[in-house]
Amino acid sequence: MSKRLNLLVFSGDYDKALAALILANGARELNMEVTIFCAFWGLLMLREENKNVSKNKSFFERMFGIFTPRGAEKLTLSRMNMGGVGKGMLKKMMQDKEKPMLKDFLDGARKKGVKFYGCKLSQEVMGFKKEEFIPELEIIEVYEYLKDASESDIQLFI
Amino acid sequence: MSKRLNLLVFSGDYDKALAALILANGARELNMEVTIFCAFWGLLMLREENKNVSKNKSFFERMFGIFTPRGAEKLTLSRMNMGGVGKGMLKKMMQDKEKPMLKDFLDGARKKGVKFYGCKLSQEVMGFKKEEFIPELEIIEVYEYLKDASESDIQLFI
Amino acid sequence: MSKRLNLLVFSGDYDKALAALILANGARELNMEVTIFCAFWGLLMLREENKNVSKNKSFFERMFGIFTPRGAEKLTLSRMNMGGVGKGMLKKMMQDKEKPMLKDFLDGARKKGVKFYGCKLSQEVMGFKKEEFIPELEIIEVYEYLKDASESDIQLFI
Repeated sequence: MSKRLNLLVFSGDYDKALAALILANGARELNMEVTIFCAFWGLLMLREENKNVSKNKSFFERMFGIFTPRGAEKLTLSRMNMGGVGKGMLKKMMQDKEKPMLKDFLDGARKKGVKFYGCKLSQEVMGFKKEEFIPELEIIEVYEYLKDASESDIQLFI
Repeated sequence: MSKRLNLLVFSGDYDKALAALILANGARELNMEVTIFCAFWGLLMLREENKNVSKNKSFFERMFGIFTPRGAEKLTLSRMNMGGVGKGMLKKMMQDKEKPMLKDFLDGARKKGVKFYGCKLSQEVMGFKKEEFIPELEIIEVYEYLKDASESDIQLFI
Repeated sequence: MSKRLNLLVFSGDYDKALAALILANGARELNMEVTIFCAFWGLLMLREENKNVSKNKSFFERMFGIFTPRGAEKLTLSRMNMGGVGKGMLKKMMQDKEKPMLKDFLDGARKKGVKFYGCKLSQEVMGFKKEEFIPELEIIEVYEYLKDASESDIQLFI
């Protein structure tokens, strides 16, 4: 039976999303089953860049949708972001070494069959609509996350 | 035998405390055994609002007690706190959806029998007295945490 | 068979490094096997203070080496750092209780046989040379981390 990796991605930082997706890709290459449960800020990396919905949203929900990053590449660094200078520098350093970008790791994870779940409570509170996210995202309750995590070989909170 | 969830709460952020307590409540509802080990900033969410002690404290300990949040609802967001505006907005959005507040999730966890432990080293260094915390908090050494964690089905560092 | 603790240290914060090393020391004292896999900012705590290399580095790599903390004691707090005042206060409070410093916990972990691994991708992107780190650091790929983690009793992302 294959091993299982379960990631709870809470953070909305560029570098932490990168860590999560590098782990997810690596685990799939080792033939591990991988699930990523995105909660709170972790949902931001799964937003589709061009699919912001404002209809049927409260004032706060609209504001929230506008002032939070839309998709993986829009996230900022957890440190040394320096208004984007640090992030640009990191991306340049990654390119110099011909490493894939965050977007590529996300696409890789999607193609390799990583299962993406979103936290129902977070989605409701933040007011995001299902169609604002990548289509394969499945919204689940915390109970389902807990069951999946308790049967996994590695669980991490990122 | 029931499954076990073990959380090491290191962070003193409102949103991360919320994540921890939502997981804890959910796990208890699934009849999992739940222990929360609070270390460093994680201890702040278990302070009782009206029980600040200054007696028998060094200058630094008194300062520390005054300038750190006193209890769960006083914590700030890990991002977008914006001097409290972001946190107020999040709380408003939670209320609009009739979600419980952090305080309610903490009370729920206490009522549902989540076991709260505090890190002895952290408590000593920060100079907190036992009576400044919720009464059921038990102060333990890192060894006891490790033993408990190693026998749990899910361990997370939050 | 002895239990195993596996830590993925991603953070470059003084307080989180302290948490990781306290766990590592404690686990070794309980005779658990301990591996620490340092990725991204987590590598900073393993830099040797006097071994900055600028030769054969790109401009960005040199800048990166200069503007990031060199070694454990140079890290800053994840919160309340206040330009070093908060960190100084924390260190003073630790000394008052005769607690070891971060450097001591790191030395302790090294002496007790904690296994230190560094993430190959992170090292390449950041442009660090092997000789800039503590000598026992072994650079490995994410696959090796995943295998080790999946066989451990506790896995934490710090």
